[in-house]
Amino acid sequence: MSVAKSILSFWFEFSSTYSYLSVGRIKSVCEKEGIEFEWKPFLLGPIFKEQGMSDSPFNIYPAKGKYMWRDIERKTEKYGLPFRKPDIFPRNGLKAARITTAFLDQPWIETFILEIYKLEFSQNVDISDKTALSDLLNSLGQNAEEVLLLSESTENKELLRKNTEEASKLGIFGAPSFIANGELFWGDDRLEDAIEFLKRV
Amino acid sequence: MSVAKSILSFWFEFSSTYSYLSVGRIKSVCEKEGIEFEWKPFLLGPIFKEQGMSDSPFNIYPAKGKYMWRDIERKTEKYGLPFRKPDIFPRNGLKAARITTAFLDQPWIETFILEIYKLEFSQNVDISDKTALSDLLNSLGQNAEEVLLLSESTENKELLRKNTEEASKLGIFGAPSFIANGELFWGDDRLEDAIEFLKRV
Repeated sequence: MSVAKSILSFWFEFSSTYSYLSVGRIKSVCEKEGIEFEWKPFLLGPIFKEQGMSDSPFNIYPAKGKYMWRDIERKTEKYGLPFRKPDIFPRNGLKAARITTAFLDQPWIETFILEIYKLEFSQNVDISDKTALSDLLNSLGQNAEEVLLLSESTENKELLRKNTEEASKLGIFGAPSFIANGELFWGDDRLEDAIEFLKRV
Repeated sequence: MSVAKSILSFWFEFSSTYSYLSVGRIKSVCEKEGIEFEWKPFLLGPIFKEQGMSDSPFNIYPAKGKYMWRDIERKTEKYGLPFRKPDIFPRNGLKAARITTAFLDQPWIETFILEIYKLEFSQNVDISDKTALSDLLNSLGQNAEEVLLLSESTENKELLRKNTEEASKLGIFGAPSFIANGELFWGDDRLEDAIEFLKRV
Protein backbone atom coordinates (compact mmCIF):
# COMPACT_ATOMS: atom_id res chain seq x y z
CA MET A 1 0.00 0.00 0.00
CA SER A 2 1.38 3.37 -0.93
CA VAL A 3 0.41 6.62 0.70
CA ALA A 4 0.04 9.62 -1.60
CA LYS A 5 2.31 12.47 -0.55
CA SER A 6 0.49 15.68 0.26
CA ILE A 7 1.10 18.58 -2.05
CA LEU A 8 0.81 22.29 -1.37
CA SER A 9 -1.29 24.11 -3.96
CA PHE A 10 0.02 27.59 -4.66
CA TRP A 11 -2.64 29.88 -6.19
CA PHE A 12 -1.20 33.05 -7.65
CA GLU A 13 -2.26 35.95 -9.86
CA PHE A 14 0.17 37.85 -12.06
CA SER A 15 -1.13 41.31 -11.15
CA SER A 16 -0.71 40.69 -7.41
CA THR A 17 2.17 42.26 -5.49
CA TYR A 18 2.01 39.79 -2.62
CA SER A 19 2.03 36.90 -5.10
CA TYR A 20 5.41 38.21 -6.24
CA LEU A 21 6.78 37.70 -2.71
CA SER A 22 5.66 34.06 -2.67
CA VAL A 23 6.74 33.34 -6.25
CA GLY A 24 10.15 34.67 -5.27
CA ARG A 25 10.61 32.35 -2.31
CA ILE A 26 8.26 29.35 -2.50
CA LYS A 27 10.68 27.07 -4.27
CA SER A 28 13.50 27.48 -1.77
CA VAL A 29 11.14 27.39 1.22
CA CYS A 30 9.46 24.17 0.02
CA GLU A 31 12.77 22.53 -0.85
CA LYS A 32 14.08 23.33 2.62
CA GLU A 33 10.93 21.88 4.19
CA GLY A 34 10.90 18.82 1.92
CA ILE A 35 7.48 19.77 0.56
CA GLU A 36 6.17 19.43 -2.97
CA PHE A 37 4.05 22.22 -4.38
CA GLU A 38 2.04 22.84 -7.54
CA TRP A 39 1.62 26.12 -9.41
CA LYS A 40 -2.02 27.21 -9.73
CA PRO A 41 -2.42 30.29 -11.91
CA PHE A 42 -5.84 31.96 -11.71
CA LEU A 43 -7.51 35.32 -12.27
CA LEU A 44 -8.47 37.58 -9.40
CA GLY A 45 -10.61 39.89 -11.57
CA PRO A 46 -13.68 37.61 -11.73
CA ILE A 47 -13.31 36.83 -8.00
CA PHE A 48 -13.13 40.52 -7.06
CA LYS A 49 -16.21 41.09 -9.24
CA GLU A 50 -18.09 38.38 -7.32
CA GLN A 51 -17.26 40.39 -4.18
CA GLY A 52 -18.57 43.58 -5.77
CA MET A 53 -15.16 45.14 -6.48
CA SER A 54 -14.27 46.46 -9.92
CA ASP A 55 -10.69 47.41 -9.03
CA SER A 56 -7.90 46.25 -6.71
CA PRO A 57 -8.71 46.85 -3.01
CA PHE A 58 -5.38 48.71 -2.91
CA ASN A 59 -6.84 51.29 -5.30
CA ILE A 60 -10.33 51.29 -3.74
CA TYR A 61 -8.83 51.96 -0.28
CA PRO A 62 -5.94 54.45 -0.77
CA ALA A 63 -4.62 54.24 2.82
CA LYS A 64 -4.32 50.47 2.41
CA GLY A 65 -2.68 50.94 -1.00
CA LYS A 66 -0.12 53.41 0.32
CA TYR A 67 0.78 51.02 3.11
CA MET A 68 0.98 48.05 0.73
CA TRP A 69 3.66 49.65 -1.45
CA ARG A 70 5.88 50.38 1.54
CA ASP A 71 5.25 46.91 2.95
CA ILE A 72 6.19 45.33 -0.40
CA GLU A 73 9.31 47.50 -0.53
CA ARG A 74 10.37 46.22 2.91
CA LYS A 75 9.48 42.59 2.17
CA THR A 76 11.23 42.44 -1.22
CA GLU A 77 14.32 43.87 0.46
CA LYS A 78 14.06 41.19 3.14
CA TYR A 79 13.63 38.40 0.57
CA GLY A 80 16.35 39.76 -1.73
CA LEU A 81 13.98 40.44 -4.62
CA PRO A 82 14.36 43.45 -6.93
CA PHE A 83 11.61 46.04 -6.60
CA ARG A 84 10.51 49.29 -8.16
CA LYS A 85 6.98 50.59 -7.84
CA PRO A 86 5.29 50.37 -11.26
CA ASP A 87 3.63 53.46 -12.74
CA ILE A 88 0.40 51.54 -13.34
CA PHE A 89 -1.27 49.12 -10.94
CA PRO A 90 -2.67 46.62 -11.42
CA ARG A 91 -1.29 45.40 -14.72
CA ASN A 92 -3.32 42.97 -16.82
CA GLY A 93 -1.93 39.48 -16.21
CA LEU A 94 -4.34 37.60 -18.46
CA LYS A 95 -1.86 36.74 -21.24
CA ALA A 96 0.82 35.64 -18.77
CA ALA A 97 -1.73 33.50 -16.92
CA ARG A 98 -2.85 31.85 -20.17
CA ILE A 99 0.75 31.08 -21.17
CA THR A 100 1.43 29.61 -17.73
CA THR A 101 -1.74 27.51 -17.86
CA ALA A 102 -0.88 26.13 -21.30
CA PHE A 103 2.77 25.33 -20.55
CA LEU A 104 2.65 24.36 -16.89
CA ASP A 105 4.48 21.07 -17.57
CA GLN A 106 7.42 22.74 -19.36
CA PRO A 107 10.80 23.07 -17.64
CA TRP A 108 11.09 26.77 -18.58
CA ILE A 109 7.77 27.81 -17.02
CA GLU A 110 9.09 28.48 -13.49
CA THR A 111 11.64 30.91 -14.87
CA PHE A 112 8.95 32.48 -17.05
CA ILE A 113 6.69 33.03 -14.01
CA LEU A 114 9.40 34.64 -11.86
CA GLU A 115 10.69 36.79 -14.73
CA ILE A 116 7.20 38.11 -15.47
CA TYR A 117 6.90 39.30 -11.87
CA LYS A 118 10.36 40.88 -12.01
CA LEU A 119 9.51 42.74 -15.23
CA GLU A 120 6.28 43.95 -13.63
CA PHE A 121 7.51 44.90 -10.18
CA SER A 122 11.10 45.93 -10.75
CA GLN A 123 11.26 47.15 -14.36
CA ASN A 124 7.91 48.90 -14.78
CA VAL A 125 7.06 46.70 -17.80
CA ASP A 126 3.47 46.25 -19.01
CA ILE A 127 3.20 42.45 -18.82
CA SER A 128 0.23 42.42 -21.18
CA ASP A 129 2.42 43.86 -23.94
CA LYS A 130 2.97 41.30 -26.68
CA THR A 131 6.51 42.47 -27.45
CA ALA A 132 7.56 42.23 -23.80
CA LEU A 133 6.12 38.71 -23.58
CA SER A 134 7.75 37.68 -26.88
CA ASP A 135 11.13 39.01 -25.79
CA LEU A 136 10.97 37.01 -22.58
CA LEU A 137 9.77 33.83 -24.33
CA ASN A 138 12.52 34.14 -26.95
CA SER A 139 15.14 34.66 -24.24
CA LEU A 140 13.97 31.36 -22.74
CA GLY A 141 14.59 29.61 -26.06
CA GLN A 142 10.92 29.36 -26.99
CA ASN A 143 9.11 30.16 -30.21
CA ALA A 144 7.19 33.15 -28.91
CA GLU A 145 4.67 33.29 -31.73
CA GLU A 146 3.77 29.62 -31.32
CA VAL A 147 3.54 29.87 -27.52
CA LEU A 148 1.25 32.91 -27.71
CA LEU A 149 -0.94 31.27 -30.36
CA LEU A 150 -1.36 28.04 -28.38
CA SER A 151 -2.08 29.97 -25.16
CA GLU A 152 -4.99 31.69 -26.94
CA SER A 153 -6.69 28.44 -27.94
CA THR A 154 -10.32 28.00 -26.91
CA GLU A 155 -9.41 24.94 -24.82
CA ASN A 156 -6.70 26.77 -22.90
CA LYS A 157 -8.83 29.86 -22.26
CA GLU A 158 -11.53 27.53 -20.93
CA LEU A 159 -8.99 25.74 -18.71
CA LEU A 160 -7.92 29.01 -17.05
CA ARG A 161 -11.56 29.99 -16.63
CA LYS A 162 -12.24 26.64 -14.91
CA ASN A 163 -9.21 27.07 -12.65
CA THR A 164 -10.56 30.45 -11.57
CA GLU A 165 -13.96 28.90 -10.87
CA GLU A 166 -12.23 26.22 -8.81
CA ALA A 167 -10.41 28.93 -6.84
CA SER A 168 -13.71 30.61 -6.06
CA LYS A 169 -15.25 27.30 -4.96
CA LEU A 170 -12.27 26.73 -2.64
CA GLY A 171 -13.12 30.00 -0.91
CA ILE A 172 -10.18 31.88 -2.40
CA PHE A 173 -10.78 35.66 -2.33
CA GLY A 174 -7.25 37.02 -2.77
CA ALA A 175 -3.73 36.13 -3.81
CA PRO A 176 -1.48 34.46 -3.05
CA SER A 177 -3.46 31.62 -1.50
CA PHE A 178 -2.35 28.19 -0.43
CA ILE A 179 -4.39 25.01 -0.06
CA ALA A 180 -2.90 22.51 2.38
CA ASN A 181 -4.85 19.35 3.16
CA GLY A 182 -8.03 21.01 1.95
CA GLU A 183 -7.55 24.13 4.12
CA LEU A 184 -7.16 27.65 2.79
CA PHE A 185 -4.30 29.92 3.83
CA TRP A 186 -4.23 33.47 2.47
CA GLY A 187 -1.26 35.75 2.01
CA ASP A 188 2.48 35.40 1.64
CA ASP A 189 2.77 35.59 5.43
CA ARG A 190 0.77 32.36 5.77
CA LEU A 191 3.11 30.22 3.65
CA GLU A 192 4.89 28.86 6.71
CA ASP A 193 1.58 28.11 8.48
CA ALA A 194 0.33 26.27 5.39
CA ILE A 195 3.47 24.12 5.25
CA GLU A 196 3.21 23.38 8.98
CA PHE A 197 -0.42 22.36 8.48
CA LEU A 198 0.49 20.12 5.55
CA LYS A 199 3.18 18.38 7.58
CA ARG A 200 1.00 17.93 10.66
CA VAL A 201 -1.63 15.67 9.10
CA MET B 1 24.27 62.53 26.82
CA SER B 2 21.43 60.07 27.02
CA VAL B 3 19.77 58.44 24.04
CA ALA B 4 16.00 57.99 24.25
CA LYS B 5 15.05 54.34 23.88
CA SER B 6 12.71 53.64 20.98
CA ILE B 7 9.26 52.42 21.87
CA LEU B 8 6.86 50.32 19.83
CA SER B 9 3.37 51.83 19.63
CA PHE B 10 0.66 49.17 19.62
CA TRP B 11 -2.63 50.43 18.16
CA PHE B 12 -5.55 48.14 18.90
CA GLU B 13 -9.34 48.14 18.66
CA PHE B 14 -11.52 46.09 20.98
CA SER B 15 -13.83 44.78 18.26
CA SER B 16 -10.93 43.43 16.18
CA THR B 17 -10.19 39.70 16.09
CA TYR B 18 -6.59 40.13 14.94
CA SER B 19 -6.01 42.68 17.73
CA TYR B 20 -6.86 39.83 20.15
CA LEU B 21 -3.94 37.81 18.76
CA SER B 22 -1.50 40.65 19.38
CA VAL B 23 -2.93 41.59 22.78
CA GLY B 24 -2.48 37.95 23.77
CA ARG B 25 1.21 37.80 22.87
CA ILE B 26 2.73 41.29 22.63
CA LYS B 27 3.92 41.43 26.23
CA SER B 28 5.87 38.18 26.12
CA VAL B 29 7.23 38.86 22.62
CA CYS B 30 8.45 42.34 23.59
CA GLU B 31 9.94 41.13 26.87
CA LYS B 32 11.82 38.43 25.00
CA GLU B 33 13.10 40.98 22.49
CA GLY B 34 13.96 43.56 25.16
CA ILE B 35 11.56 46.07 23.60
CA GLU B 36 9.29 48.56 25.35
CA PHE B 37 5.82 49.10 23.95
CA GLU B 38 2.90 51.41 24.63
CA TRP B 39 -0.81 50.59 24.42
CA LYS B 40 -2.70 52.80 21.97
CA PRO B 41 -6.46 52.18 22.08
CA PHE B 42 -8.41 53.70 19.18
CA LEU B 43 -11.66 53.27 17.27
CA LEU B 44 -11.78 51.65 13.86
CA GLY B 45 -15.37 52.74 13.15
CA PRO B 46 -14.53 56.34 12.18
CA ILE B 47 -11.53 55.13 10.16
CA PHE B 48 -13.64 52.59 8.25
CA LYS B 49 -16.19 55.35 7.60
CA GLU B 50 -13.43 57.54 6.11
CA GLN B 51 -12.75 54.64 3.73
CA GLY B 52 -16.44 54.43 2.81
CA MET B 53 -17.21 51.29 4.88
CA SER B 54 -20.10 51.18 7.30
CA ASP B 55 -19.38 47.65 8.57
CA SER B 56 -16.39 45.37 9.15
CA PRO B 57 -14.71 44.27 5.89
CA PHE B 58 -15.21 40.72 7.20
CA ASN B 59 -18.97 41.25 6.96
CA ILE B 60 -18.85 43.25 3.71
CA TYR B 61 -16.82 40.48 2.04
CA PRO B 62 -18.26 37.14 3.25
CA ALA B 63 -15.54 34.93 1.68
CA LYS B 64 -12.94 36.98 3.55
CA GLY B 65 -15.01 36.75 6.74
CA LYS B 66 -15.40 32.99 6.52
CA TYR B 67 -11.65 32.62 6.06
CA MET B 68 -10.87 35.02 8.92
CA TRP B 69 -12.78 32.96 11.50
CA ARG B 70 -10.91 29.79 10.55
CA ASP B 71 -7.61 31.68 10.49
CA ILE B 72 -8.29 33.10 13.96
CA GLU B 73 -9.22 29.63 15.20
CA ARG B 74 -5.88 28.27 13.98
CA LYS B 75 -3.86 31.24 15.28
CA THR B 76 -5.44 31.30 18.75
CA GLU B 77 -4.69 27.57 18.99
CA LYS B 78 -1.09 28.27 17.98
CA TYR B 79 -0.73 31.10 20.53
CA GLY B 80 -2.51 29.18 23.31
CA LEU B 81 -5.41 31.65 23.56
CA PRO B 82 -8.99 30.54 24.27
CA PHE B 83 -11.37 31.01 21.35
CA ARG B 84 -15.03 30.59 20.54
CA LYS B 85 -16.65 32.35 17.61
CA PRO B 86 -19.04 35.02 18.97
CA ASP B 87 -22.67 35.07 17.81
CA ILE B 88 -22.41 38.74 16.93
CA PHE B 89 -19.54 40.46 15.12
CA PRO B 90 -18.31 43.07 15.51
CA ARG B 91 -19.14 43.96 19.11
CA ASN B 92 -19.14 47.59 20.17
CA GLY B 93 -15.83 48.28 21.92
CA LEU B 94 -16.44 51.97 22.65
CA LYS B 95 -16.93 51.65 26.44
CA ALA B 96 -13.91 49.35 26.82
CA ALA B 97 -11.79 51.76 24.74
CA ARG B 98 -12.88 54.70 26.90
CA ILE B 99 -12.04 52.85 30.11
CA THR B 100 -8.63 51.88 28.73
CA THR B 101 -7.93 55.45 27.62
CA ALA B 102 -8.84 56.87 31.04
CA PHE B 103 -6.89 54.34 33.10
CA LEU B 104 -3.91 53.60 30.86
CA ASP B 105 -1.44 54.32 33.68
CA GLN B 106 -3.08 51.90 36.13
CA PRO B 107 -1.42 48.56 36.95
CA TRP B 108 -4.68 46.62 36.40
CA ILE B 109 -5.29 47.92 32.87
CA GLU B 110 -3.27 45.26 31.03
CA THR B 111 -5.32 42.52 32.65
CA PHE B 112 -8.49 44.45 31.89
CA ILE B 113 -7.56 44.68 28.19
CA LEU B 114 -6.75 40.98 27.81
CA GLU B 115 -9.82 39.88 29.80
CA ILE B 116 -12.12 42.01 27.63
CA TYR B 117 -10.83 40.22 24.53
CA LYS B 118 -11.24 36.83 26.20
CA LEU B 119 -14.83 37.62 27.18
CA GLU B 120 -15.53 38.74 23.64
CA PHE B 121 -13.76 36.01 21.68
CA SER B 122 -14.02 32.97 23.93
CA GLN B 123 -17.13 33.53 26.03
CA ASN B 124 -19.51 35.20 23.59
CA VAL B 125 -19.99 38.18 25.94
CA ASP B 126 -21.28 41.55 24.71
CA ILE B 127 -18.41 43.80 25.81
CA SER B 128 -20.59 46.91 25.59
CA ASP B 129 -22.84 45.50 28.32
CA LYS B 130 -22.51 47.55 31.50
CA THR B 131 -22.99 44.56 33.80
CA ALA B 132 -20.27 42.56 32.05
CA LEU B 133 -17.89 45.52 32.31
CA SER B 134 -18.77 46.11 35.96
CA ASP B 135 -18.27 42.45 36.85
CA LEU B 136 -14.81 42.49 35.27
CA LEU B 137 -13.83 45.79 36.91
CA ASN B 138 -15.02 44.59 40.30
CA SER B 139 -13.08 41.33 39.91
CA LEU B 140 -9.97 43.48 39.35
CA GLY B 141 -10.60 45.25 42.69
CA GLN B 142 -11.90 48.44 41.10
CA ASN B 143 -14.94 50.54 41.90
CA ALA B 144 -16.82 49.80 38.70
CA GLU B 145 -19.31 52.64 39.00
CA GLU B 146 -16.55 55.20 39.52
CA VAL B 147 -14.42 53.83 36.67
CA LEU B 148 -17.36 53.88 34.24
CA LEU B 149 -18.33 57.41 35.29
CA LEU B 150 -14.79 58.79 34.88
CA SER B 151 -14.41 57.06 31.50
CA GLU B 152 -17.51 58.90 30.25
CA SER B 153 -16.13 62.35 31.08
CA THR B 154 -16.04 64.89 28.27
CA GLU B 155 -12.25 65.16 28.54
CA ASN B 156 -11.74 61.41 28.23
CA LYS B 157 -14.17 61.03 25.32
CA GLU B 158 -12.26 63.84 23.59
CA LEU B 159 -8.93 62.12 24.32
CA LEU B 160 -10.06 58.89 22.63
CA ARG B 161 -11.41 60.88 19.70
CA LYS B 162 -8.03 62.61 19.33
CA ASN B 163 -6.19 59.28 19.52
CA THR B 164 -8.37 58.00 16.68
CA GLU B 165 -7.61 61.12 14.65
CA GLU B 166 -3.91 60.57 15.32
CA ALA B 167 -4.24 56.96 14.10
CA SER B 168 -5.80 58.19 10.88
CA LYS B 169 -3.03 60.75 10.38
CA LEU B 170 -0.44 58.02 10.88
CA GLY B 171 -2.00 56.19 7.93
CA ILE B 172 -3.59 53.50 10.10
CA PHE B 173 -6.51 51.80 8.28
CA GLY B 174 -6.93 48.59 10.29
CA ALA B 175 -6.04 46.88 13.54
CA PRO B 176 -3.77 45.86 15.02
CA SER B 177 -1.19 48.33 13.78
CA PHE B 178 2.29 49.03 15.02
CA ILE B 179 4.40 52.17 14.68
CA ALA B 180 8.14 51.56 14.86
CA ASN B 181 10.48 54.48 14.27
CA GLY B 182 7.71 56.35 12.50
CA GLU B 183 6.87 53.47 10.15
CA LEU B 184 3.53 51.70 10.00
CA PHE B 185 3.19 47.92 10.23
CA TRP B 186 -0.28 46.42 9.89
CA GLY B 187 -1.51 43.09 11.21
CA ASP B 188 -0.56 40.65 13.94
CA ASP B 189 1.72 38.93 11.44
CA ARG B 190 3.84 42.08 11.16
CA LEU B 191 4.67 42.33 14.89
CA GLU B 192 8.04 40.63 14.40
CA ASP B 193 8.87 42.84 11.40
CA ALA B 194 8.01 45.95 13.42
CA ILE B 195 10.29 44.87 16.27
CA GLU B 196 13.09 44.08 13.83
CA PHE B 197 12.66 47.53 12.28
CA LEU B 198 12.71 49.19 15.70
CA LYS B 199 15.93 47.41 16.62
CA ARG B 200 17.65 48.11 13.32
CA VAL B 201 17.72 51.90 13.57
